[in-house]
Amino acid sequence: MNRLLIQNVSLFQNEKTLSKNDILIEDRYIKSIDSCNSYPSSHCSEIIDGSRFLAIPGLMNCHTHIPMVLFRGFAEDMNLSDWLTKKIFPLEGKLTEELVYFGALVGISEMIHSGCTFFADMYFFLEAIAKAVSDSGIRANLSLGLIDQDGDLGLNKSESLFNQYHLSAGERIHIFLGPHAPYTCSLPYLKKISDLAKSLDTGVHIHTNETEKEVFDFIALHHKHPIIALNDLGFFSSPTLCAHCVHMNSDEIEILKEVQAMVVHNPSSNMKLGSGIAPINKMILRGLNVSIGTDGAASNNQLNMFKEMHLTSLLGKTLDKDGSTLSAETVFDMSTKIPGKYLMKGKTGTISTGSLADLILIPLDCLALFPSDFISKSMIHSLQGNEVDTVIIDGKIIMKNQKILTFDEREIRSKANQLVKETYQ
Amino acid sequence: MNRLLIQNVSLFQNEKTLSKNDILIEDRYIKSIDSCNSYPSSHCSEIIDGSRFLAIPGLMNCHTHIPMVLFRGFAEDMNLSDWLTKKIFPLEGKLTEELVYFGALVGISEMIHSGCTFFADMYFFLEAIAKAVSDSGIRANLSLGLIDQDGDLGLNKSESLFNQYHLSAGERIHIFLGPHAPYTCSLPYLKKISDLAKSLDTGVHIHTNETEKEVFDFIALHHKHPIIALNDLGFFSSPTLCAHCVHMNSDEIEILKEVQAMVVHNPSSNMKLGSGIAPINKMILRGLNVSIGTDGAASNNQLNMFKEMHLTSLLGKTLDKDGSTLSAETVFDMSTKIPGKYLMKGKTGTISTGSLADLILIPLDCLALFPSDFISKSMIHSLQGNEVDTVIIDGKIIMKNQKILTFDEREIRSKANQLVKETYQ
Repeated sequence: MNRLLIQNVSLFQNEKTLSKNDILIEDRYIKSIDSCNSYPSSHCSEIIDGSRFLAIPGLMNCHTHIPMVLFRGFAEDMNLSDWLTKKIFPLEGKLTEELVYFGALVGISEMIHSGCTFFADMYFFLEAIAKAVSDSGIRANLSLGLIDQDGDLGLNKSESLFNQYHLSAGERIHIFLGPHAPYTCSLPYLKKISDLAKSLDTGVHIHTNETEKEVFDFIALHHKHPIIALNDLGFFSSPTLCAHCVHMNSDEIEILKEVQAMVVHNPSSNMKLGSGIAPINKMILRGLNVSIGTDGAASNNQLNMFKEMHLTSLLGKTLDKDGSTLSAETVFDMSTKIPGKYLMKGKTGTISTGSLADLILIPLDCLALFPSDFISKSMIHSLQGNEVDTVIIDGKIIMKNQKILTFDEREIRSKANQLVKETYQ
Repeated sequence: MNRLLIQNVSLFQNEKTLSKNDILIEDRYIKSIDSCNSYPSSHCSEIIDGSRFLAIPGLMNCHTHIPMVLFRGFAEDMNLSDWLTKKIFPLEGKLTEELVYFGALVGISEMIHSGCTFFADMYFFLEAIAKAVSDSGIRANLSLGLIDQDGDLGLNKSESLFNQYHLSAGERIHIFLGPHAPYTCSLPYLKKISDLAKSLDTGVHIHTNETEKEVFDFIALHHKHPIIALNDLGFFSSPTLCAHCVHMNSDEIEILKEVQAMVVHNPSSNMKLGSGIAPINKMILRGLNVSIGTDGAASNNQLNMFKEMHLTSLLGKTLDKDGSTLSAETVFDMSTKIPGKYLMKGKTGTISTGSLADLILIPLDCLALFPSDFISKSMIHSLQGNEVDTVIIDGKIIMKNQKILTFDEREIRSKANQLVKETYQ
């Protein structure tokens, strides 16, 4: 058995108080959280001196397209529709499995550096992304993006990917199905995907209600709002990640609550593409599950959940014209406890006995925490992400002293850069 | 004569192309920008190998209260009015000159690390802030905050500070006058301050039109919108930094254009305090000078101009529901060329022969610039600030290899922390 002991590390007691603890990790799980020096270090295969650090749960990025880091900076200052059809779709046509693998690793390195221990992804070349997840040690929920043209072939491919990869990489990989959006999938196709998800006992990851135009067009075609039409199909019969949900009416919010879907808010992406401001606080007050995602790096351009958390709070306060809206504590839960409960049955998202050991260490003496009073609020308002020193995922040290241990970052980036130049330039 | 040569460094040719150059700095100024190896390095007192780096102008933070880094995390998730009266004013009552000096240095260290070479400040204990500017090597425009209660004593104090500090620290310090706001200064007092600024041939730094309530209250009292009332006074007879300008009518925008004031946009602070979204793009299209500030760290909480530039673009796109609004190039100019022209007669804000040598170096191989296509747009959308490696201000290397050379950051922070604990906790 592998025993990792983090000695003397600070944990939140409440918003203003920290306490020092020893965290004992056995294999993948947190075995105990005790007062300091209560466990003999001689029994451990590895010791981390935590005295300089605050430990918090690893952040969960609930909506991204990780290989799109390959397109960062390729299509800027554009609206979603032009961005997608004129720039992104043509670029994606040239992707290869090799490029996606290296791109995924570059994106994963960026997320690990900013304290993210889990991501939910929708893309193509899922095999390559799964290999990057497996090699890097991160945890992920992967789905193959499906549009109408993929037809039954896409369904069969999704099922075979599910059979091959679900609970692979030591259970770090989960597979969902990935219908792209109600404007790229017909209602019958969405129904087929939903039925398949139910028969596989898994979930669905979809974009919806992202732009005003998309909602208008959908209503013109179907005479119903998108979420209502999806619900009428019985689409929400499995756990469902609904990315964006910017333009929602009250009935649609009510439906997502009733069917217990999880909304994923992507503040940077919605702002950058001029899509609008999602009514997140309204959804939370109504009792919906709401989490946060970075979206792909081509529309953000950073894969940094600390930035997304900060923006979630700032954008909520802006929409509501109220500085007290979407408090730091609420937003922190949206990136940890809430998705941990929804996607991982509560086994991630908190630092507690019996949980999977997905946690990160932040130096208490970093500049952003000066002079550190309401330290729990500083997680959202002051930290920038680059402070993260150590990342532990599934009980394994993935980054230490800001150096990723599972792969050679520089080499990967250099290889990815070379492939990008060969392919696109 | 002190000669600093930056060899082989990349500069923007246009948005997609970089060129390699040697930049020769003689004392405070950029003497020449030439093709590589055209100047004999033996004539130089110091050489920087720039081959790994992109050089861009140092960023100009046009509105902050630098010692407020001492209150970071002390008052979170609140509206401006409560934040100011219930939290900040009582804390400020306990400040000492010593605390402000160390706080200013902590704030300056944070700005230098994120590539800021200039800041415009309004606060008390100006002597302590001037000393911190002098000791650290940064460039600053300082003003003493004035409210009605300061009366003639405040005016006399401002005049004597002007005489003592304007163009001090090797001309790195400029002094403006600092009437706090139209809701804390009466119209006659604002008139007196404006007259004094004119007689001293200097400028004014003021908060205005920050919240809807403040504007309503002002109109109830004076039966005019704030900017109109100020203009009727002849308030704008000197260069004027107008911080915030969130709630502006068209006439007020027109006035600020006619009097050639400079608006300072503070996106994080306006969002965090729920104040609203300033109509920045509208002002720019109308031909106004618009720059960017971080505001104080207690309402941001980060003194990072890369974040503010990114948010300026994102928030503009959100307000206009248009992803093409406030392009990266426009926003970059707002933090460099525009304030350089307005506040420094064009001697800062660009890298050009004859300019003051205020510039920063960014590693071309940093993760945020992967895979680097439209690199000029990446300055706004992809960089996070922590990538900055080297900072040169007034021809002097202030930071190299991410280490500040002019003061001991850790020691300063530790001293400031100790003083904070003694004073507040």
